[in-house]
Formats: sequence, C-alpha cells, structure tokens
Amino acid sequence: MPELLDAAIDDELRAFFAEARVRAGAYGAHYAALWESIEQQSTGGKRVRPRLVWSAYRGFGGADRAMATRVALAFELLHTAFLIHDDLIDRDLVRRGEPNVAGRFAARAIAHGADERASTVWGETAAVLAGDLALSRAHRELAMLPVARECRESLLDILDRAVFISAAGELSDVVSSLRGTTPALESVLATLEQKTAVYSFEAPLAAGAVLAGAGDEAVAALCRFGRLVGVAFQITDDVLGVFGDPAVTGKSASADLREGKRTALIAHAATTPSWPAIAARLGDPSLDEDEADRLREELRRCGALDAALALASEHVTLARYELDAADLPAPLRAELGEFAQRATERVR
Amino acid sequence: MPELLDAAIDDELRAFFAEARVRAGAYGAHYAALWESIEQQSTGGKRVRPRLVWSAYRGFGGADRAMATRVALAFELLHTAFLIHDDLIDRDLVRRGEPNVAGRFAARAIAHGADERASTVWGETAAVLAGDLALSRAHRELAMLPVARECRESLLDILDRAVFISAAGELSDVVSSLRGTTPALESVLATLEQKTAVYSFEAPLAAGAVLAGAGDEAVAALCRFGRLVGVAFQITDDVLGVFGDPAVTGKSASADLREGKRTALIAHAATTPSWPAIAARLGDPSLDEDEADRLREELRRCGALDAALALASEHVTLARYELDAADLPAPLRAELGEFAQRATERVR
Repeated sequence: MPELLDAAIDDELRAFFAEARVRAGAYGAHYAALWESIEQQSTGGKRVRPRLVWSAYRGFGGADRAMATRVALAFELLHTAFLIHDDLIDRDLVRRGEPNVAGRFAARAIAHGADERASTVWGETAAVLAGDLALSRAHRELAMLPVARECRESLLDILDRAVFISAAGELSDVVSSLRGTTPALESVLATLEQKTAVYSFEAPLAAGAVLAGAGDEAVAALCRFGRLVGVAFQITDDVLGVFGDPAVTGKSASADLREGKRTALIAHAATTPSWPAIAARLGDPSLDEDEADRLREELRRCGALDAALALASEHVTLARYELDAADLPAPLRAELGEFAQRATERVR
Repeated sequence: MPELLDAAIDDELRAFFAEARVRAGAYGAHYAALWESIEQQSTGGKRVRPRLVWSAYRGFGGADRAMATRVALAFELLHTAFLIHDDLIDRDLVRRGEPNVAGRFAARAIAHGADERASTVWGETAAVLAGDLALSRAHRELAMLPVARECRESLLDILDRAVFISAAGELSDVVSSLRGTTPALESVLATLEQKTAVYSFEAPLAAGAVLAGAGDEAVAALCRFGRLVGVAFQITDDVLGVFGDPAVTGKSASADLREGKRTALIAHAATTPSWPAIAARLGDPSLDEDEADRLREELRRCGALDAALALASEHVTLARYELDAADLPAPLRAELGEFAQRATERVR
C-alpha cells in the first residue's frame, strides 16, 4: 500500500512540476531551470510525510485517495521548502550526495561565464526563491482543497503551527550551535522536536486524521505520538550520522563530528568525565578518519552511544503508550506501533 | 479616507504581531525578537498596497472595512516578506535608513558575544525565517478569509500569480545584473513589471475588486492599469534614486550609481554615444560625490534623464487609457487616474 501511495505522490508531483515548468518557461530559461531544481530537490526522499498522512487518513476510514494525495503533497512541498532554506542557512551546496538548488545554480552561473562571487549570488538567490515557491505552493495546496470549510481551516491551522514551530526550532538550533556553549540535553531535545518532529511527524498525522474526520481527542493523541516518535527518529538519525554505515545512510560518518553537530549523543557525552577530551577534537573541520574513529570510540566508551540509544527507545515506548491510551482504530494503532518501532530498529 | 485605512491597517498589524510575539515567547527570547524584527520591517512603508486594495474595493461598492483590511494585510505581509528576502539576496543590512531583520540579528549576535562570522549567520538565518513567516502569514490571511469559496479562490489565484511572477522577476534581475552585459531597455522594463508591478500594483487592485464582486473584464482592466502604473512608479523611483533629494527619498543619491543598478535611465544611456564614458564609472563602489555629480551630469546631457521621464509619462498615459476604455465606476476611474498622475509628478 505505501508503494501505491508513493506512486500517486510521484505522479502528483510530476504533474505539478510539469505545469510549473511550462508556466515558468514564459519567463525565461533560468526560471524554468529554477523549477527543475525544485523538482529535483523534491525527489529522492523517503516520503515519510506523505506516508504518515496516508496512514492516519486511511486508519480513520478515509477513502478518497486523490484528496489525501493533495494533502500529502502539501507536506512534501513544505519539507522541500525547509530543506532548501535549511541548506541556504548552512551554506551547503550538496544534499543527499547531489548538488542542491544552490549548487545547481552556482554551477549554472559558472556555465554562463560568471565568476565565483557571482556564482555564489546566483546560488543563494535560487535557494531563497525556490524555498519561497515551494512554501507558497504548500500553503496553496491546502487553501484550495475542496473540502468543507471547517476541515480546510483545521488543516490550515496544522500547517500554520508547523511553520511557526519549525522556524522557532531552526532559529534556536543556529543560535545555540554558534554560541559555543556545552549543549544541554533538554535544549537538544526541544530543538529536535521543534525543528523536525512537529512538521515531519505530528503535522502529517494530524492532517490525515482531520481529513478523515477524526475527533479532537484522537487527533491530539496522534500529535503527541508524532512528536515523541519524531524525536526518536531524530536521535537515531544523529546516532547513525556518527556510527552508521555511510553506504546505508548516504552521508559520511565523520561529517557531523567535523561540524560539531549538537546531538543527544554529544549532549550526553558532555555530562561525562570524557567530555574535555571529546570537546577538544569535536567540530574540527580537519579531523581525519583515524581521529574520527578515536572520537567514535570515546563516545562509545563514555556511555554516550548507549545513552542516546536508550533515550530513543524511551521515546518509542512513550509514543506507544500514547497509542495504547488513545481511542484509535485497532489497525491504525498496530500500524503506527510498528512504525514507531522502526525508529530505533535501524541501528541494530 | 486613506488615513483612516492606514490606521486600520496599523491596528490590524499591531494586533497580529502582539499575538505572534506572545506565541513566540514560548519558544525563547530570540524567537520573540525575530517577530519583533518582522514587525519593525512592516512599519514605515507607504502602505501603497493596502491603499490600492481599499481603492478598488470601495470603488466597486465594497463596504466591509474589516474584510478589506484583512486582504490589505495579506499584501502588506507579502511585501514585507519580499523586502526581507530581497535584502537577504543583496546582503543588505539596512532598509529605509534603519537596520533590517538581518542587521538587527547580526547586532543581537554581537551583543550575545558572537564573533563576526557567527553574527553574519545569525543575521542570514533570521532573514530567511522572517521572510518565510511573513510569506506564510500572507497566504494564511487569504486562505482563512470568511468569504464565498469562489471569491477566496480568486484571491488565492491572484496571490499565486503575484508570488510566481515576482520570483521570476527577482531571478532575472539578479542574473542580468551579474552578467555584466549592457542592459536592454526591454529587459529592464520586463523585470520592473515582474519583480514589482505585479505584486505591488496589479495584485492589490485585482484583489480589492474581486472582493467587492467586480466582473472579470473590469478586473482585467485594473490588472493592465496596475502593471502600467507600477512600471511608471518604478521608472520614476529609479530616476529619483539618482537625481532625487536624499532628504526626500531617504536614500543616498549615489548608492544606485555605485551599485551600477540597471534601470531604464541606464538602459537608455547605453544606446547613446556617451555610454563608454558612463559605463567606465558606473558601478564603481568607490565613486565619490564629485564623480557621482559628473555621472549625473553625463546622464542628463546624453538625454537619458529626459528619456526615462518620457517613458514614465508614456506608461501613465497608457495606464489612463486602460481606465478610460474600461467599464469602471466613475469615482474609481477618477481616483485611479489621479493616483497614476502622482507616479511622475514626484520628480517635478
């Protein structure tokens, strides 16, 4: 069933971008290329958000696949917008091993004879605009949804909350990472929840449920579940970012160490006697593979790895409690329970 | 009447931002400060867009001031979002003589002990997020409007077109300014129309008219009028940017010359024998006031100033033709005719 949904989302995205490219063509080749780069950025993901929309929608008896696909598309485009603007903030030119929007446009500038400074400006401009366009389309997709006003307004409230809280999380992530203080676990977890869990897990689940006509209490339970499971996924992703197999995760296992990314793993390490030794090397952009290996060993030995995994498991357990305590259709409870389990199973 | 509307918009903006700041406070002082900086950015403008919404709405018999104010607010927030992201693209830290969102956050970072690199990142992050939040709110304001579905969807179509075309204009502006080629008048005018005239003139007029229930033909005429008058205002603004009194325009009369901004004025100069002499000094960041004066003299002597003013007047004339040819209520035609006249009167 998820495969069928993936195909429906892919079809919907393809149709949307085909139309946008034609429309953009009237404003020149660069603008058409910008839309192509947004499409590029929106493919290759794991479609986590569309699947959650669909699970919740179907779980509450929803049967209009086309309608669910449009809601799913809105959250996928929101995700695309956030990825593009997140990369802009981080000045990254690569995402999932491929040039991102800014990377593509910087290369396009060079191909058009621009110098390096100009190519940076092309890249940044493209990233600002591409994010704005994807974000606008996410709003439009829900605003134009042909459902009853009350339902549409609830969906718009969910989107509003997701945008509002994600921005708060992004800001506090950037601010705390630049302040150079030792990361506290509490603030790391709050940032994970705000920056990712709300828009990627809570909101799609709530939207699917609302679209299917679920009651307020059930929706609220799904929201709590979504936040907890979202944090569990993020903690695990961060563990995989350091200890995972690059062939599976698609990213270098040393990049987060070189960047000094503030994760639950690192926040726990900061509470151990090993911290001075870890802190001395963490965030050094010139870290070589041997040094990264020693850092990994240190993170393992001081108990940070186990603590982070335990924390992720705890979040999964709490998420499952929410499912059990709520009045949900049994198949939905089972499906989401399995989904939660997958958050931590990936590291075994 | 415009003063009354300004007060209503100010009240609406104040109420909106007061609520947002309280809501943001739950996510920390930095996030509340981000919302404050968005509010700051949204004040001090000339409220051109709200006034156009109101003129068109009232002109077609609209009487629900609260409803018109919400639509006006949407376009004012769209404008705020575009200003913030435009400054981000230009790496400007100042707007209307005051620190902008990025400028404020860069200063905030320094006050919190950040170094220069970190303060740049704080500033850029704040600008990305502030623009996203204002843009999202513009969409939401129309999406939640309690009017008939058909009317709301027409308003959303107007917003969609405004966002789509503004992004095209911004991209082509950046791309052409970095390519170092001589600006062609045609492409300068197309960029003015796309980047500014559509979202600032056409869209607010169309939205006010649609909200009041105006017919398709009248709305289409207002759209054509808006694009023409918008281009007239922009040509004149660019002339004032070089020949205006800084005490009136609020910006240095040499900044555009130092930046080498591609305007109708410059595009005309590029067709004259004076161009090599002008091009040699234009866009030199170290241009002093005497050199800027000589450049201004050259632009006057080669006929570029007169040509730009004539072009602006032509656009006003064409805009007024649109008003005369359309089936519009007489008071609206008179009001918009006077408004169009003001585009060029400012340079006399």
